[in-house]
Amino acid sequence: MNYNGNKAENVKIAYIGGGSRGWAWGLMSDLAMNEDMSGDIYLYDIDFEAARDNEIIGNKIKDVEGCKSVWNYRAVKTIGEALTDANFVVISILPGTFDEMQSDVHAPEEFGIYQSVGDTSGPGGIIRALRTIPMFEEIAKNIERYCPEAWVINYTNPMTICVKTLYSTFPEIKAFGCCHEVFGTQKLLINALSDIKGIDDVKREDIKVNVVGVNHFTWLTEASYRDINLYPVYKEFCDKYYEEGYGTANINWFDKNISFHYNRNKVKFDLFRRYGCIAAAGDRHLAEFCEGSWYLADDAKVAEMRYGLTPVSWRKEDLEERRQKSKELVSGTRIFELSPTGEEGVEQMRALLGLRDLTTNVNIPNYGQIPNLPLGVVVETNASFRTNSLKAVMAGEIPQNIYPLIARIVGEQEIVAEAGRTRDLDLAFNAFANDPLVRLDITKAKVLFNKMIDNTKAYLTMYDL
Amino acid sequence: MNYNGNKAENVKIAYIGGGSRGWAWGLMSDLAMNEDMSGDIYLYDIDFEAARDNEIIGNKIKDVEGCKSVWNYRAVKTIGEALTDANFVVISILPGTFDEMQSDVHAPEEFGIYQSVGDTSGPGGIIRALRTIPMFEEIAKNIERYCPEAWVINYTNPMTICVKTLYSTFPEIKAFGCCHEVFGTQKLLINALSDIKGIDDVKREDIKVNVVGVNHFTWLTEASYRDINLYPVYKEFCDKYYEEGYGTANINWFDKNISFHYNRNKVKFDLFRRYGCIAAAGDRHLAEFCEGSWYLADDAKVAEMRYGLTPVSWRKEDLEERRQKSKELVSGTRIFELSPTGEEGVEQMRALLGLRDLTTNVNIPNYGQIPNLPLGVVVETNASFRTNSLKAVMAGEIPQNIYPLIARIVGEQEIVAEAGRTRDLDLAFNAFANDPLVRLDITKAKVLFNKMIDNTKAYLTMYDL
Amino acid sequence: MNYNGNKAENVKIAYIGGGSRGWAWGLMSDLAMNEDMSGDIYLYDIDFEAARDNEIIGNKIKDVEGCKSVWNYRAVKTIGEALTDANFVVISILPGTFDEMQSDVHAPEEFGIYQSVGDTSGPGGIIRALRTIPMFEEIAKNIERYCPEAWVINYTNPMTICVKTLYSTFPEIKAFGCCHEVFGTQKLLINALSDIKGIDDVKREDIKVNVVGVNHFTWLTEASYRDINLYPVYKEFCDKYYEEGYGTANINWFDKNISFHYNRNKVKFDLFRRYGCIAAAGDRHLAEFCEGSWYLADDAKVAEMRYGLTPVSWRKEDLEERRQKSKELVSGTRIFELSPTGEEGVEQMRALLGLRDLTTNVNIPNYGQIPNLPLGVVVETNASFRTNSLKAVMAGEIPQNIYPLIARIVGEQEIVAEAGRTRDLDLAFNAFANDPLVRLDITKAKVLFNKMIDNTKAYLTMYDL
Amino acid sequence: MNYNGNKAENVKIAYIGGGSRGWAWGLMSDLAMNEDMSGDIYLYDIDFEAARDNEIIGNKIKDVEGCKSVWNYRAVKTIGEALTDANFVVISILPGTFDEMQSDVHAPEEFGIYQSVGDTSGPGGIIRALRTIPMFEEIAKNIERYCPEAWVINYTNPMTICVKTLYSTFPEIKAFGCCHEVFGTQKLLINALSDIKGIDDVKREDIKVNVVGVNHFTWLTEASYRDINLYPVYKEFCDKYYEEGYGTANINWFDKNISFHYNRNKVKFDLFRRYGCIAAAGDRHLAEFCEGSWYLADDAKVAEMRYGLTPVSWRKEDLEERRQKSKELVSGTRIFELSPTGEEGVEQMRALLGLRDLTTNVNIPNYGQIPNLPLGVVVETNASFRTNSLKAVMAGEIPQNIYPLIARIVGEQEIVAEAGRTRDLDLAFNAFANDPLVRLDITKAKVLFNKMIDNTKAYLTMYDL
Repeated sequence: MNYNGNKAENVKIAYIGGGSRGWAWGLMSDLAMNEDMSGDIYLYDIDFEAARDNEIIGNKIKDVEGCKSVWNYRAVKTIGEALTDANFVVISILPGTFDEMQSDVHAPEEFGIYQSVGDTSGPGGIIRALRTIPMFEEIAKNIERYCPEAWVINYTNPMTICVKTLYSTFPEIKAFGCCHEVFGTQKLLINALSDIKGIDDVKREDIKVNVVGVNHFTWLTEASYRDINLYPVYKEFCDKYYEEGYGTANINWFDKNISFHYNRNKVKFDLFRRYGCIAAAGDRHLAEFCEGSWYLADDAKVAEMRYGLTPVSWRKEDLEERRQKSKELVSGTRIFELSPTGEEGVEQMRALLGLRDLTTNVNIPNYGQIPNLPLGVVVETNASFRTNSLKAVMAGEIPQNIYPLIARIVGEQEIVAEAGRTRDLDLAFNAFANDPLVRLDITKAKVLFNKMIDNTKAYLTMYDL
Repeated sequence: MNYNGNKAENVKIAYIGGGSRGWAWGLMSDLAMNEDMSGDIYLYDIDFEAARDNEIIGNKIKDVEGCKSVWNYRAVKTIGEALTDANFVVISILPGTFDEMQSDVHAPEEFGIYQSVGDTSGPGGIIRALRTIPMFEEIAKNIERYCPEAWVINYTNPMTICVKTLYSTFPEIKAFGCCHEVFGTQKLLINALSDIKGIDDVKREDIKVNVVGVNHFTWLTEASYRDINLYPVYKEFCDKYYEEGYGTANINWFDKNISFHYNRNKVKFDLFRRYGCIAAAGDRHLAEFCEGSWYLADDAKVAEMRYGLTPVSWRKEDLEERRQKSKELVSGTRIFELSPTGEEGVEQMRALLGLRDLTTNVNIPNYGQIPNLPLGVVVETNASFRTNSLKAVMAGEIPQNIYPLIARIVGEQEIVAEAGRTRDLDLAFNAFANDPLVRLDITKAKVLFNKMIDNTKAYLTMYDL
Repeated sequence: MNYNGNKAENVKIAYIGGGSRGWAWGLMSDLAMNEDMSGDIYLYDIDFEAARDNEIIGNKIKDVEGCKSVWNYRAVKTIGEALTDANFVVISILPGTFDEMQSDVHAPEEFGIYQSVGDTSGPGGIIRALRTIPMFEEIAKNIERYCPEAWVINYTNPMTICVKTLYSTFPEIKAFGCCHEVFGTQKLLINALSDIKGIDDVKREDIKVNVVGVNHFTWLTEASYRDINLYPVYKEFCDKYYEEGYGTANINWFDKNISFHYNRNKVKFDLFRRYGCIAAAGDRHLAEFCEGSWYLADDAKVAEMRYGLTPVSWRKEDLEERRQKSKELVSGTRIFELSPTGEEGVEQMRALLGLRDLTTNVNIPNYGQIPNLPLGVVVETNASFRTNSLKAVMAGEIPQNIYPLIARIVGEQEIVAEAGRTRDLDLAFNAFANDPLVRLDITKAKVLFNKMIDNTKAYLTMYDL
Repeated sequence: MNYNGNKAENVKIAYIGGGSRGWAWGLMSDLAMNEDMSGDIYLYDIDFEAARDNEIIGNKIKDVEGCKSVWNYRAVKTIGEALTDANFVVISILPGTFDEMQSDVHAPEEFGIYQSVGDTSGPGGIIRALRTIPMFEEIAKNIERYCPEAWVINYTNPMTICVKTLYSTFPEIKAFGCCHEVFGTQKLLINALSDIKGIDDVKREDIKVNVVGVNHFTWLTEASYRDINLYPVYKEFCDKYYEEGYGTANINWFDKNISFHYNRNKVKFDLFRRYGCIAAAGDRHLAEFCEGSWYLADDAKVAEMRYGLTPVSWRKEDLEERRQKSKELVSGTRIFELSPTGEEGVEQMRALLGLRDLTTNVNIPNYGQIPNLPLGVVVETNASFRTNSLKAVMAGEIPQNIYPLIARIVGEQEIVAEAGRTRDLDLAFNAFANDPLVRLDITKAKVLFNKMIDNTKAYLTMYDL
């Protein structure tokens, strides 16, 4: 890597999960539309063909209109080639296949347990974590070996446990987890500003928030736009739309064509009314961290709250569409469209290269930025990105009101991480049985747990099954 | 108060709830059987007649065979008289009547929620706390006014919230909460020693334990007898008796004639098997802090776990018996029996007077003795009693395994204490709806909460009902 | 205050010490050269005539070429008028007169104690603090009364103690202390980059540093420019110039004509060689926090280290020149020159108004950003400025090497702040006698202390002298 | 080891430094006079003959009148034999010889630096630490290898650094450091009680104190006897004897015939007057932690403060006497006298074996018992000894007044420990140059440091000299 004037050249990015047909394309687009970095992107994927397709797709981008920087894409067969001397490592993998996810999400339904996403917490998130942790241990060891100084950005879920595993495997790693869910809530606050105050054309970045909590169960203890405290604005907004819900604002680039992702924020409004604190993730995620009886009791409750459960069957169909799209991009029958994702990965890289300063929310260990949670647990708070430096910003205490909700989840996720690390399924079951969605007696909980383990055993060979 | 050789004379004890027909008689007995303190005990009770009866009963004790020290009892009509210049204040009150407790314990049953005690946590404990907090504020203010230097021993439930209220009302108070539940588990460990190792005649005080957690949901992270680590002993014991349960050892003096108090420790054994940590309270208490589906799902589950729910009807009958016994003691047709209770109140007083050193478990604020819980929350850990000094002993972190269970409860109890302090029923409902026993959707939870509030409204006039 | 597009209008700034002929002019200049804020500046000073002169000078600026924004200046006779509804409060006062400073700096010389500045720590700083604390209590009370929501920027020394006093008087105050000394070291690092690496034209803001310590005794635990770690660069630079010293880079706008302010950074180089950590303040300040024998033993030592002691006689002469300059500016015989000071006050205001984000070093209480110093002590670290929000960035532990130096000073300054708050001269003497520059036995130390108190007693009437 | 009724039999104690002619004899005496433990004591010493003499002496004790328990002594040639399966390890060694100590104590005198003991802090203590650390690393590694579960009691100075080294070498070690200096101050408080209050016959154990600080620079933040707060008593006592000093009470068994050890407590009185806090060590130790100009400026100052400097020549003569005494004891021309030392080692062992509970002051890492000092530094506070358990008692914050004094020393000792661990003499010099007694400019400080290193180089071969 080197600097040429105000540009960074020959930046090397290793993309683990480089065959991705979603996040990878988003990053390609964001990188192309930025003008002060250029370099090489090494795509590594256990599905080498997929990575090879992305190599072809990526290398065509330099000819797309609006492309402002040149990136050379290269699919590689070993993780070592990808990582050696990398400046950045991006991790975005699917742990297992959608068949495993089918079990994660839907197996619990037989026991009356519904999940809206099933990749973070709840029974699905826990089982997913168990197969993901060994993969992340492997990645972390390779980073230690090939590029210990690289900055590592993780997008994979379960976010908290993935980041924890990176740090527990290689404690000196320079890693953080990145998620767009808070952005959706910032956009909802923009809507509230417009609806309640008549202030329009506000940019997401100008909604300043103080973030506390864990990924997908994040809360804003402060929110403001210029001299306007957004708390009273949001209160008025919640009151106005409490019954009907509001709009479809909380949508990310990734979800834009997916009907059940259009939610009406009623879970968020209800949590605000109850706890006086702004929950900052999509309703589908928030619901999974609350007692199962609250928002996920059954279909009727979900319908009443006007959000949707994402079936894995849809994910499979969607994957097929993406595969088709990939083919067209590779063959050239379709032109890659440059379009900003709204993700911050590229801005974070720029900040770490010294091309700008950036303060935004990320997932990193608790160094004391949340004083009433234990040190070392992975939390989501603001952090300051500067040249080769990422430092937590003091977020303050979790408000008393929501402390029990969050401390419980923080503790559960630590147990799951430890259970994965030590390959201890009994320990994992402790967390499983105590999860807010698992309202079963111990015997039934064990039956479900064993079944879900059995369904996904192809990816759990390192455990004593 | 003064010293005469190795004895403390003219010690003044104020007993708030001095008409008590259980704890008061126990303390009378323990004091009489100790020989190095003497003095005056002022009995204050909102039921003055009850206090007057205890004055008569107490003053007869000096003539009972085996009495080793002279204590003069005096019932007083104002709390000021009781507290002025007191060296010790004992608080043991019934907040409200058994009619309120009837609602606390049994009203939730209509919603499928069962409680084995109903005075600490769970819906019953929370509602009880709301009426208790204003009473404890009043007591704390009077202590500040009349005897700010006195040592205050609380026996009233909900213990954690009572102690928290004393400290939040009068931060300089020298108060602690005392509970015998850990002793029962020490006795169970004695049984285990005998059963597994053939070691007999061990005294409770020689079972050394490290206590962490909150009252009635306390855990032993270390337990030993001489050079024997009791963890493997207890493991073997649990395995041996896991299905059938073991004995009736966990009984305190107070409960000795009560059949449903005879439990078989199966909840404790199950918690040990799951969490690898010794839960140290009676099964009836422990069950109430766990997910309702685990041990309190229904009568069948309770029967399977071989413990009992204490109906308030029994408490009412028992009270009648005690009233009768009181009459007989007053009239002299029955002689007061001296019998050690096994409580530590008298030993704690002796230590605070410099007559001995004592390390035992108490409920006080967290000064850092449990580093992974927030500072200031009330916890139960060991503490060192010495002359006019009570200092927490470093207990270490809550083990990862049980952290989510405990942190959640700690947080809930802080919310309830704050809700009582600020007279904020919405805040109280937050904790209520999130309680492990309340597995209801929000709407139903609210119906139950409102009903329980309404049932006990005679004692909630300071709230905006 | 209101926004008009991307500009903030009708911003109200209260300037306490508004008759200042140095800092006030600098702020006027910086504000005029910035284009996205405008409004009113209320000048309050115990010397009303001086404030009135600055009102005249300030109001002429709008006609100066290069002025980009309109600010209306108004001298007021009461602090209430200045503070009412202020958005920002700037505090830049001289506590006492240069006659008191004459005693602070020079009285200790009779005892062999030399001071290079004498306004922060050391005997002079301590005595200065004693008269400053009551003034800051008064200011803080007025802020609480007139503009509790205002952001308060302090430039007055002793910085740490002034900020501490603001917070201990009005705990909810939104205050921070600002100092340019770190900037000087950033400029020195630019010189090192040029000298050692041949990299030129680097801007100060692009030297990213992690700051720890207390004001004027700040240290950089990390320093980088783009991908260059500046630690090895600085090491080479120090080695090269260790004997002769280097240049005059560490000069601020304020000092630019003052020969003895031209230092050769030899104290900094020596501290780096000894402690392996970059000290980040001018040598004159750094020397005062070290054992007196190290850099301030006598004139010969100061000459050897190639820096200078600032005599108060010079300050008096300089003041005369400034008075003359003021007259000319008022009369119009001299035109106000717009010239950037390099201070960050204006940028901080912009960030707090939401016009930009800014991460920079400030003096605020320790919320845990330096985990191995006590909570609540005032420290200098980076912080994140955003809309109406200032939050510390985790700075990490004080390195072991310099911990004893800093912990001692932190503790001393807390004692002095407490001594001032409680008007306790015995307590102040504790800190005085233990100061690194005061190498006297107790008796002599007391003589000196009493003398310095007596010399400045006109400003110490609130103490029991 | 086994229990027989209430006695512990076959206890194995390994004594490192078992040729000692002072501490070893004291321990022999205390063990013999205690009746509920018996077993084997393995004596290991680099001077095997000295250990062999003590074996002979020790084995004769069982025939001395008043001996209540049988201990078999055995000198061994390898540390492994001593440590294997030991229940307790006692470490009491002389690091180097009195020739090295001659340099430690007296070499600085040429530079005007006087030391009253020279084995803890100050130039002598630092140099002594450098040769001691490698020895303690060796001991810790052997404990890890041969008896990782043993309890380790250290008596060797520099105490803090020795304990730190044990923990940094073998983090799971069960070690603590023991020192009688606080006991001396308790005895002084007994004198004050008698002199001021007319209360006699008080036992040391009944003076209850709260200890904070580091070894030999310990302070009592609370002190009481029964219901008497000893602070006002001590204040009156200090005022009465401030000029003349008081008595000779602060003498330990070890020092009883040594005239210059008879001090008049004037340093303690002066520190109390200045800091309002009771310093709790002999004046000779306390003086060494304060600025050199305060109590150790020169002989006149020492004479004025009425204490003494212990010359190493005396230690050499004293050693000769002890050698002579040893010969007589071995040959039987002198009978071993049983006499209680007042040390607590035996009581600590009994508590760790479950034969009693004990709360007393020891040197262990800071787990949070002193919240305003960094975690992990070795501090002296109270701790609770119970069966196989040693836990710190919360001591509370170092009072603000003395925080700078203590934090500085804590930091210095951490640096020295780290310098020894990493064999880094430059780092050691940092602490040396910044020591309160070393009031030299850097150049002279370096000359002295180098000279002292050179004088003791026979024991510093592991450093890069």
